[in-house]
Amino acid sequence: MKPQLTIIKVGGKIVEEEISLNELLDKFASIKGNKILVHGGGRSATKIASQLGIESKMIDGRRVTDKETLKVVTMVYGGLVNKNIVAGLQQRNVNALGLTGADMNIIRSVKRPVKEVNYGYVGDVKSVNAHMIIELLNKSIVPVLAPLTHDGEGNMLNTNADTIAGEVAKALAINFDITLIYCFEKKGVLQNENDDDSVIPFINYDDFKKFVANGVIQGGMIPKLENAFNAIQEGVSEVIITMASNIDSNEGTRIKDKIRKK
Amino acid sequence: MKPQLTIIKVGGKIVEEEISLNELLDKFASIKGNKILVHGGGRSATKIASQLGIESKMIDGRRVTDKETLKVVTMVYGGLVNKNIVAGLQQRNVNALGLTGADMNIIRSVKRPVKEVNYGYVGDVKSVNAHMIIELLNKSIVPVLAPLTHDGEGNMLNTNADTIAGEVAKALAINFDITLIYCFEKKGVLQNENDDDSVIPFINYDDFKKFVANGVIQGGMIPKLENAFNAIQEGVSEVIITMASNIDSNEGTRIKDKIRKK
Repeated sequence: MKPQLTIIKVGGKIVEEEISLNELLDKFASIKGNKILVHGGGRSATKIASQLGIESKMIDGRRVTDKETLKVVTMVYGGLVNKNIVAGLQQRNVNALGLTGADMNIIRSVKRPVKEVNYGYVGDVKSVNAHMIIELLNKSIVPVLAPLTHDGEGNMLNTNADTIAGEVAKALAINFDITLIYCFEKKGVLQNENDDDSVIPFINYDDFKKFVANGVIQGGMIPKLENAFNAIQEGVSEVIITMASNIDSNEGTRIKDKIRKK
Repeated sequence: MKPQLTIIKVGGKIVEEEISLNELLDKFASIKGNKILVHGGGRSATKIASQLGIESKMIDGRRVTDKETLKVVTMVYGGLVNKNIVAGLQQRNVNALGLTGADMNIIRSVKRPVKEVNYGYVGDVKSVNAHMIIELLNKSIVPVLAPLTHDGEGNMLNTNADTIAGEVAKALAINFDITLIYCFEKKGVLQNENDDDSVIPFINYDDFKKFVANGVIQGGMIPKLENAFNAIQEGVSEVIITMASNIDSNEGTRIKDKIRKK
């Protein structure tokens, strides 16, 4: 039997406000066994960029990252947000280690090719150094991953935190029985977007296709769920989409089914 | 015989400019065996603080670190400067890992007590987790230490980089034959401050006392040398004070003698 591993991805809003951060860290600290935290930080980046006179330009929810913006996200994600989480976990006796993809070369990426849009210094994940992450976990070290990778040519690259969580989960799926939890601002995937309690408890791939076809699932939830099914397909045991405040409960939407190959 | 370990401390000026940073990283990458890089970043911190409308207040060369300034140094030291160095070393096939004292709890400190001056969120080093650093070195991982520690109560603390280099050296002196190199803007300790080539090649403790008494050594060099003798006293094999561009040469001022106990 493979050992358990919980990977939790939390967005910027949760980790950037002291009260919600403390609540999250309490709950995260109480999770038993191997765990990894992946965090965002977009709101702080936008705020600090603005204070520095740098305009934040988003296309399809992704930040266009020019050289100056790269400095901001490297500071904010890799420094401010990451180290506050690490210090908060150490306070809770969790032996956290803050990492970007450059640290110990754990996540290598390639700068996204310019097609219709030039996203600038944005990385698409190329490889995850599973060996090194496993060594850390075996020493009871808890990786705290910032949404930054590197290209091996000296450049940091801004990288989507959902993607990092998914890629790390897939890379470790041979070695661990993984639960991947994507936190967002709702209790789960909603049947009715106006009813916060209409959480769909389980979704398989056929349901997903139907929900997309009839418009129940739309917008940013579609790539999130595509990621989730993709992770399951590559050996992740379970993906849960829920609210950060519910990570210690059984609530949320569970994705378990593999995509049935035709 | 103990294995060799080279610990190099470089100031902000070197690591904040692309050309001098690249030159440093080339030279650092070429050092054989176990190594640790400790960096500053004060100039960038001052610049970004100023852009954010935060005034930098220095007393005796130390930054007064209020809550807003702590955010800036956490971003700049732990994020921007640290990760650029790590990415640059990875590019040179050095398996660098950027760390603050909070990461894996490697350096715990206490907030400096308020006496004549309230330095705010500034840490005095209390303990170094030598065991964890040794494990990293044994895996050929190269720690890159930012001048930040934590108090174990959830707070990051701004901590002098010279002090971090010295404390880490002392904590590892039982296990390694350590050369500790403090880089600064001169070729070494100068006999005549107006002659950059008047480097004093060796200083023992008696010389040091004489040089202080007759004014040859003054200002910020006094605590630097006190740190150096203190490190030697606690088992560090050699301390060298030199220019960053000379770390691969034999130039600089060497401190080898223990302080003779009366």
